[in-house]
Amino acid sequence: MELKCRLDHIGIVVRDLEEAKAYYKQCFGFDASSPIVDEPAQKVKIVFLETGHGDAPSIELIQPVSEASTVFNFLEKTGGGLHHLAYLVSDFDEAIEHFKKNKALMVGKVYPGAGHKGQRVIWFYTARKDLVELIEEKK
Amino acid sequence: MELKCRLDHIGIVVRDLEEAKAYYKQCFGFDASSPIVDEPAQKVKIVFLETGHGDAPSIELIQPVSEASTVFNFLEKTGGGLHHLAYLVSDFDEAIEHFKKNKALMVGKVYPGAGHKGQRVIWFYTARKDLVELIEEKK
Repeated sequence: MELKCRLDHIGIVVRDLEEAKAYYKQCFGFDASSPIVDEPAQKVKIVFLETGHGDAPSIELIQPVSEASTVFNFLEKTGGGLHHLAYLVSDFDEAIEHFKKNKALMVGKVYPGAGHKGQRVIWFYTARKDLVELIEEKK
Repeated sequence: MELKCRLDHIGIVVRDLEEAKAYYKQCFGFDASSPIVDEPAQKVKIVFLETGHGDAPSIELIQPVSEASTVFNFLEKTGGGLHHLAYLVSDFDEAIEHFKKNKALMVGKVYPGAGHKGQRVIWFYTARKDLVELIEEKK
């Protein structure tokens, strides 16, 4: 199988979602392409910004809302910044098998992505140590 | 002035360009959209990969070719990974003034980007500590 991923968004961890959103508008001219959404699976709130390409790819700003959030340690350690790349895949189940065959390590379990209209989401660390989110493309 | 940036590429620092390029092809299905190019201004070699959106945005793989490279310390400290976002701007000189007004710190000097057909390039640390590359859009 040859998988074909399609870049969906760039995840950036921030301390203050509203402040970061305002800065990206002011400095880069980026409008939000979504409302602010709670993602309970990761204990974060998120917002998507368009980057001059219509809906995708976008920037996802991510603010942890709890110390138990998956990105809380990243924020504390680094002060925030570039965190992950997310890709759309047309065949989600095949993509998972393909990534496993390529020695990527699955992180957690499949869940319905609150920021992606409930489409299924899974996370991997690739063999190259890249943190990657795969999102099931809407049929 | 309202500036409008347009995402051009995501820079990822790697230890071995050929190995990383092969992995992105095998795992993600990404083809190279450029030859491997030497960028003497940064003492790196680079290659661009398409990410399912035609020419842009793309992933730029970056390998330092000298310990004096601007990304050598990043590679040693982190093992490599997500490094910067690069944006096309239509009015390059106005964009520089706009970023300065928004308290972004200019890093180095303007130079002709070897990976961008000699179009002018400048780097900034934004007030939010994001490392950003601005590229003059071809008229």
